[in-house]
Amino acid sequence: MILREIASLISGALEGDGSIEISGVQGIKDAGEGDITFIGSNKYLNYLHDCSASAVITAERIETSLSQIIVAQPELAFARLISEFYPEPLAKPGIHSSVVVGENVKLGDNISLAAGVSIGDGVVIGDGVVLHANVVVGNNCIIGDHSILHPNVTLYRNSQLGQRVILHSGVVIGADGFGYTVDEVGRHFKINQVGRVVIEDYVEIGANSCVDRAAFNTTLIKEGTKIDNLVQVAHNCTVGEHSILVSQVGLAGSVKLGHHVVLAGQVGVGDHVTLGDQVTLTARSGAFRDVESNAVVSGFPVVPNTQWKREIASLPKLPDLIKQVRKLEARLDAME
Amino acid sequence: MILREIASLISGALEGDGSIEISGVQGIKDAGEGDITFIGSNKYLNYLHDCSASAVITAERIETSLSQIIVAQPELAFARLISEFYPEPLAKPGIHSSVVVGENVKLGDNISLAAGVSIGDGVVIGDGVVLHANVVVGNNCIIGDHSILHPNVTLYRNSQLGQRVILHSGVVIGADGFGYTVDEVGRHFKINQVGRVVIEDYVEIGANSCVDRAAFNTTLIKEGTKIDNLVQVAHNCTVGEHSILVSQVGLAGSVKLGHHVVLAGQVGVGDHVTLGDQVTLTARSGAFRDVESNAVVSGFPVVPNTQWKREIASLPKLPDLIKQVRKLEARLDAME
Amino acid sequence: MILREIASLISGALEGDGSIEISGVQGIKDAGEGDITFIGSNKYLNYLHDCSASAVITAERIETSLSQIIVAQPELAFARLISEFYPEPLAKPGIHSSVVVGENVKLGDNISLAAGVSIGDGVVIGDGVVLHANVVVGNNCIIGDHSILHPNVTLYRNSQLGQRVILHSGVVIGADGFGYTVDEVGRHFKINQVGRVVIEDYVEIGANSCVDRAAFNTTLIKEGTKIDNLVQVAHNCTVGEHSILVSQVGLAGSVKLGHHVVLAGQVGVGDHVTLGDQVTLTARSGAFRDVESNAVVSGFPVVPNTQWKREIASLPKLPDLIKQVRKLEARLDAME
Repeated sequence: MILREIASLISGALEGDGSIEISGVQGIKDAGEGDITFIGSNKYLNYLHDCSASAVITAERIETSLSQIIVAQPELAFARLISEFYPEPLAKPGIHSSVVVGENVKLGDNISLAAGVSIGDGVVIGDGVVLHANVVVGNNCIIGDHSILHPNVTLYRNSQLGQRVILHSGVVIGADGFGYTVDEVGRHFKINQVGRVVIEDYVEIGANSCVDRAAFNTTLIKEGTKIDNLVQVAHNCTVGEHSILVSQVGLAGSVKLGHHVVLAGQVGVGDHVTLGDQVTLTARSGAFRDVESNAVVSGFPVVPNTQWKREIASLPKLPDLIKQVRKLEARLDAME
Repeated sequence: MILREIASLISGALEGDGSIEISGVQGIKDAGEGDITFIGSNKYLNYLHDCSASAVITAERIETSLSQIIVAQPELAFARLISEFYPEPLAKPGIHSSVVVGENVKLGDNISLAAGVSIGDGVVIGDGVVLHANVVVGNNCIIGDHSILHPNVTLYRNSQLGQRVILHSGVVIGADGFGYTVDEVGRHFKINQVGRVVIEDYVEIGANSCVDRAAFNTTLIKEGTKIDNLVQVAHNCTVGEHSILVSQVGLAGSVKLGHHVVLAGQVGVGDHVTLGDQVTLTARSGAFRDVESNAVVSGFPVVPNTQWKREIASLPKLPDLIKQVRKLEARLDAME
Repeated sequence: MILREIASLISGALEGDGSIEISGVQGIKDAGEGDITFIGSNKYLNYLHDCSASAVITAERIETSLSQIIVAQPELAFARLISEFYPEPLAKPGIHSSVVVGENVKLGDNISLAAGVSIGDGVVIGDGVVLHANVVVGNNCIIGDHSILHPNVTLYRNSQLGQRVILHSGVVIGADGFGYTVDEVGRHFKINQVGRVVIEDYVEIGANSCVDRAAFNTTLIKEGTKIDNLVQVAHNCTVGEHSILVSQVGLAGSVKLGHHVVLAGQVGVGDHVTLGDQVTLTARSGAFRDVESNAVVSGFPVVPNTQWKREIASLPKLPDLIKQVRKLEARLDAME
């Protein structure tokens, strides 16, 4: 593809030689001859000196000998080019002879069911769905059009996926919520979990993450939310639209998240806690009370991020502070 | 079922119209016409006003127009009704043609082995056992009567499960404990793990959790213990009876837990630590020393829960305390 | 085997009766008649009194009636004996009839491919490789000689494993890195992850751990590194040689670890952080800045381990310190 075509593709303003041949897309540290790269923020500008890329995407005109394409969101344009140059490989179409299909199953058009896939009764599979090897789909599940389930994913019964959902290997959707009560002699008595999981369109869930089905009603992951690997979403949670849950996050039962919430790595949220819209919890923080919309909070239990920074800067001074106070007390004793 | 029958089923005292038809069981916030619900504690009493349920289970007579059933443990009675109204669906009986069975395997009566199940040599499978799709059972494992292994579970060799054990999808039992020593040139030399895992009756283990086999001897999960998703139990641990390990808990090697221990979400316990009976670690706490029976502890490293509450209330005051002490020092300097 | 042969096998100096028959290897607390055991450090010496083992491996001559073998590294010698007495059982050789193999696949000699294994196109499998039941290998993967993949492991396309790599059940190698940018209307736009994962020789990875493939280029686990269960290694990380990542550790994107790094249980490392050679992070600590080689650090954010110990010893005194300062202030007010 030549640079002029790329500029047109990403609706950018071309500066420089539009006839250059572009053969690849790369990050600025590794881009070479024939590659197009991008500048996401000014701190990457120095890398341009040593960069032998053929062109760069940028938000505003920069001093460089490279040809440039100016767009409002360089990283977004760059991501689109990656999809253009390196599209996800297509799965083999068709249904492998080893696939097991239950009764009353509806299969869409142009689906790909790989070896070892097992589908229960009453399942509905949309058009263009890809089930990779050894995926197991429980009874009465619904899988929306163009969703992709990677190898060894399990859907328990009644789980419902929207369109273009991506589930990575080892994901478990709809396992029993962790609910017990105590019987007359102190043993845990299982509370049957009779709800389900609903995952809306464009959700992606990382490897080995778990979303449990509700005790009653629905555990819900709303449209466009992205969940990383090894995340736990307990029964009866609602995760709002376009949220981000980074790896090893854990949500206890009945947590409610607003839209555009960001939970960084290893965060925990206690049961029945509600986080408002656009709340951010920084890495390794833990909330067991509600957090209002737009707050950025840190620590455990969480406090406003600015306060937490003061606390972690103060804590190393505590051992000496104790000594200092003891000395002050002695001086005061002596004076009195 | 009519209300009088339900009262009899849960051995409760009926107050009100016993001839009401009950068609469902629901939590108090969602219960409607025809449903029976329960009051677990007084804080849910206000929900009764707006509740259109037909009957309520309660520990003591309450002011309400609804019919009521009075029992000692309303949540337990409620859980029993859920099992009655919404029993777990039965697996398809029989052995799918794709199942692979090793040599010298003993299969119980009324078992269900789904597609893609693979069973090693010398395995013993009890009556009524259900192995869902793609479960893999290593050589010489023993699976007790009526145990259920959900899709994609793996048992390594020699693992032993009691009766009515439930393992959720992705659970791995009996993988090699994490044991190495260092060789002459600083490389890690694997210590073969020659023990096994034993899981007693009525244990349930959540999706993608791991219980490693012992270096020698046995990693042991005792009767009635319930383990949530994504939990790590390392080699040579013993988890006592009727304990609760919430999601993302991690036990290092050779940890010993008493009976009725509760480890809340994301807790960690250091290697060779012993926690007594009925110990509770609150969420995200970490213990690297022994904890005596009946203690409720928090923080990292853990302290008594009451003390931890004082600490987390004090910490936000630390930055200002440092300034305050500096001022006191200056005043004292000026006085001297 | 008689003791003299064992001494010769582990190149140790024999003290005592070399003709004793040794039938087993056991830890010092459980060793009995016919067993050989070892003393790894002096703190285990008292166990020798009650120990009915027939022989002991030790670093220096000890006072005991047991026969002893003196070697420089007793635990290493012990580990070698375990492998001798209890070798890992061999997998059944050959290719099960249910195995699915893609196009242009190269299979080595003496391999074992169990039931339900699925192999994509262009895959290269070395000599002596064992793929246990239901392993799924994506297109164009390379698996080095004598590597072992336990049941239900998934390799995404282009993943490359060295020789004698061990992957435990549920491991997911090469899933998409967690990379998104925001589109014009605030939705997350997926950045296709076009790199791969490379795992060098002698690496072992525990059950249900995840190593994501790079956005571009390579996520790299270097030779001899050992990773425990439920660990997350994000895209573009490099983990140096002979490192140890204990269970539930999480590495964010583009983390670089030197060689012989030790990350204890539940540690987190923030994105783009570099840890030098032989750095140790103690359990549950978290680093979001670089750490220099040879440091031992703790806490979150990490500080030198000695300082952290002072901090956690001081923290319980904080609530009373606040009161103490208030009193000092009052006394000073009264004096002025």
